[in-house]
Amino acid sequence: METVMGFPATSQDDYQLSVTTIIKHAARNYARQEIVSRRLDGSMLRYTYADAYERMQKLGGGLGDIGVKIGDRVGVLAWNSHENFEIYFGLPATGAVMVLLNLRLAPQDLSYVINHSGISHIIVDETLLPIAEGIAPLCENVKSWTIITMPGKKLADVKTKLEPTYSYEDLIANGSPVSDWPNMNERSAYAACYTTGTTGKPKGVYYSHRDVYLHTTAIGMNTNISPEDTYCQVVPMFHALGWGLAQAAAMVGCRLVFPGMYTLDTLDSLSKLLVEEKVTVSAGAPAIFMPLLEYIRGLDEKPDLAGARLLSGASEPPVAMMKGFWDLTGAEIIHAYGATETTPLVTVNRLMPWLAKELNEEQRWDLKRKQGYCVVGLDIKVVNAAGEEVPPDGKTPGEILIRGPWITASYYNSPGSEDQFTADGYWRSGDVGTIDSEAYLKITDRVKDVIKSGGEWISSVDMENAIVSHPGVVEAAVVGVAHPKWEERPLALVVLRKEAVGEVSEDDIRQHLSKTFAKWQLPDTVMFVDQIPKTSVGKLDKKVIRTEHKDVYSG
Amino acid sequence: METVMGFPATSQDDYQLSVTTIIKHAARNYARQEIVSRRLDGSMLRYTYADAYERMQKLGGGLGDIGVKIGDRVGVLAWNSHENFEIYFGLPATGAVMVLLNLRLAPQDLSYVINHSGISHIIVDETLLPIAEGIAPLCENVKSWTIITMPGKKLADVKTKLEPTYSYEDLIANGSPVSDWPNMNERSAYAACYTTGTTGKPKGVYYSHRDVYLHTTAIGMNTNISPEDTYCQVVPMFHALGWGLAQAAAMVGCRLVFPGMYTLDTLDSLSKLLVEEKVTVSAGAPAIFMPLLEYIRGLDEKPDLAGARLLSGASEPPVAMMKGFWDLTGAEIIHAYGATETTPLVTVNRLMPWLAKELNEEQRWDLKRKQGYCVVGLDIKVVNAAGEEVPPDGKTPGEILIRGPWITASYYNSPGSEDQFTADGYWRSGDVGTIDSEAYLKITDRVKDVIKSGGEWISSVDMENAIVSHPGVVEAAVVGVAHPKWEERPLALVVLRKEAVGEVSEDDIRQHLSKTFAKWQLPDTVMFVDQIPKTSVGKLDKKVIRTEHKDVYSG
Repeated sequence: METVMGFPATSQDDYQLSVTTIIKHAARNYARQEIVSRRLDGSMLRYTYADAYERMQKLGGGLGDIGVKIGDRVGVLAWNSHENFEIYFGLPATGAVMVLLNLRLAPQDLSYVINHSGISHIIVDETLLPIAEGIAPLCENVKSWTIITMPGKKLADVKTKLEPTYSYEDLIANGSPVSDWPNMNERSAYAACYTTGTTGKPKGVYYSHRDVYLHTTAIGMNTNISPEDTYCQVVPMFHALGWGLAQAAAMVGCRLVFPGMYTLDTLDSLSKLLVEEKVTVSAGAPAIFMPLLEYIRGLDEKPDLAGARLLSGASEPPVAMMKGFWDLTGAEIIHAYGATETTPLVTVNRLMPWLAKELNEEQRWDLKRKQGYCVVGLDIKVVNAAGEEVPPDGKTPGEILIRGPWITASYYNSPGSEDQFTADGYWRSGDVGTIDSEAYLKITDRVKDVIKSGGEWISSVDMENAIVSHPGVVEAAVVGVAHPKWEERPLALVVLRKEAVGEVSEDDIRQHLSKTFAKWQLPDTVMFVDQIPKTSVGKLDKKVIRTEHKDVYSG
Repeated sequence: METVMGFPATSQDDYQLSVTTIIKHAARNYARQEIVSRRLDGSMLRYTYADAYERMQKLGGGLGDIGVKIGDRVGVLAWNSHENFEIYFGLPATGAVMVLLNLRLAPQDLSYVINHSGISHIIVDETLLPIAEGIAPLCENVKSWTIITMPGKKLADVKTKLEPTYSYEDLIANGSPVSDWPNMNERSAYAACYTTGTTGKPKGVYYSHRDVYLHTTAIGMNTNISPEDTYCQVVPMFHALGWGLAQAAAMVGCRLVFPGMYTLDTLDSLSKLLVEEKVTVSAGAPAIFMPLLEYIRGLDEKPDLAGARLLSGASEPPVAMMKGFWDLTGAEIIHAYGATETTPLVTVNRLMPWLAKELNEEQRWDLKRKQGYCVVGLDIKVVNAAGEEVPPDGKTPGEILIRGPWITASYYNSPGSEDQFTADGYWRSGDVGTIDSEAYLKITDRVKDVIKSGGEWISSVDMENAIVSHPGVVEAAVVGVAHPKWEERPLALVVLRKEAVGEVSEDDIRQHLSKTFAKWQLPDTVMFVDQIPKTSVGKLDKKVIRTEHKDVYSG
């Protein structure tokens, strides 16, 4: 878009927006605020923003000593640890770009990301060495591996085929603190994440300092976090900058908690951490909150999380899940929406005071399923196939387009991806949704996941949520499968609660759905399965489901 | 400062930061949020952000119709009304610069500002026509006067010598709504305010769109305002953009209340408005809060302002005033610091949780007198006469220097003012203060108001606050007056409570001061006066005081 220069201002417009400002000022203002980290051996580390900042300065020096310089790309393969937080803010002291590596990617995708971004140095947790060793032969440009060793362990005692290796702690111990950080142009890349779409190669989003600074202020204002809050980093820090709350926490001075290594098999310790550290703010996907709730359901004594706000993203939070957390723990689930391409905050679901007065309890729960309103700072459009904006009636669906200072303008070095952007600068999200008269966005589907049956559209997501609201159901996926007569017909995969197996039938599910769906929309087949295929970021892998069951209605 | 370009990012860094974004998105997200305005005839107007935005679009069209265009400077001489708010956000639709005119300036200063800024059009409240008519002959470049008439009154019924005149309401009624606002470069000036220092001509600060956008996010994060809040615009909107809370309110969706015309003689209606509209956030100077408290003290039934946060700026809030509001109304006074040159937020005094645990009640009250910590986003330095940073010990004073995206880099067209900026880009505030180990700033004086006695410094502000803490005192000013032996000696002017007149003596004041001051620091003379000279912004006018009493110790 062309800009018009008006009358000149006298402001310091040359002062660069930078992620480094956030941590420098946090160390100044919140020096004594606590940071808690569960280490790889299960022990707890407690230190302060001032301590962390000192280590960040020395980390910058240490990385410089091994040759990291302005413009380099440095890969990070790590858990949600205080070390990862130190890298988030210490790596910029070198002027290099932090490329966050998704430890759940397949080796060929991971090595693709490393080679595509031109990573020259990698920092890796000791527990993730098997992954690093698996891809090392495919990544010839990587010049060094810096290992975050288990607490108290020396580099010499780490057995690895990687070379050359450095010790993260030695870099900090020996590094001269960088006090005069490079004054990077705000358009320089601070970090990069790669999208992990279900089709094609991962695509690189390179976030500028300006982008992340502005996104951080948006997170701060839309979550109302403060120094009174304790934020726990549950979202993997390699997913879209960990969703930006750690940066916002540093900006406003929250107490910070890092859970370290955790998986779906260690939900007990995650649950304990939330309670023991009195966490008031966290964020995650239903992929973690759903099993966490199931775990809590099984406890005799429910954890007390009263007053906590849990931001839930990646997919629509089922009302049953939100009610479950509220009833069992007192925590409020707040839905937010975004993507790797959007840093990621686009919308957040907050109940406006005038709606609070008008809606009854059930309506308020229902409203909480919506993605919410697009935060101030971003432009949003919902357009039909002809590219025209649909009316804000909460009914007419269209593709969601987003524009603004923390939205990507392109994918890095990715010929052929230009069609994901419009001529007037919007990013095409690939999501289908509606906007209502209150400006709340509701996503109904992915453009490619909408089920096209007999010329009409059926929302797979709405149907999944309706199935999950059945008391016997843990999880569900609905896909469109090719049908000789109707083009496509819905197929539902359903995971039942243990106690519901054998009790709930296909017809029970259809009957449950018929409360909110027309008869022609009901799935012809409901399959009960033990688990549903997921992508590396925990989303339903509909590509795999569609392939596995492509012949259900035509075979 | 030279910047370094690193690895290129993919972010939409060309998307311009703009004040127009704030209101467009507010109208989208908070369409139904209420705006309340007390009109010039005392009646109450109630409408919504959506209504206001529609009028702003039409105002932009109407102003375009009378010739306002990109880069023009448009003067605004108005009370804190909804019309002023409409101008704040509607004028940018034309791409012109809003120059806020201080209605309390002397005619020669006001006309200087109008001519210096090159204002071509002025918008004026009907009640302020006498001021406009007084300066019109001195302002030959002004091409038109748009009058905000009393409710229901037609332009033809307004008697004025000004010409040509337009009706604000007619401009809106007849203007074609501007829906496609110019996409201004973020470095373009959005608005201008002129400093009203006690020496020299007013100096122009021209705020860029980028400056104000970033400042607005800083206000939002540091006040934790939300759509649940009701913000009342008490600070005159011509003072440093009204201190930025109206913009932040629009960014986060606060309910808004405009008190319209008010003066120190109409504190009863201001007090009533705060209570009746359930105001939870406001801001002002002790110059308004002190007499407001005096008014409240006289009421049989005290207003209930429990939970309200009142930001107090311009000068240090006396503990007696903060305790008074807390005890009588339940409102919390929060001190913040800034200047016209800083948009204005620089520091805010918030109690950090670790200090809340460590300090007793009296220590907490005492801490609240400090200016607080410099908000994230701004660099601050306290330097001695040699330009070296003083230690953060809470004791060593120095001049406060500030740098950042919402600090001015120069004064517009003001040769000779370059020495108010350092080579490394800091603005010299002219304030003397200390920084303690918790990063709290404490201003002890103006560089020019420090009393230099026998080679030592005495803080005039500390002494004023100590005097005001005497139960019989309403107000005090302390200045250094030339002395044949000691270079300078302090002189105190004191206004007593009615019931204390004749009861409190000079020696009583000195004895009260001797609790916190050494004997050699006590004022040789204490004068009891009916009032203390003030500047147009309500600050103690020490220049006048020093001139009036220059011979006290040498005559």
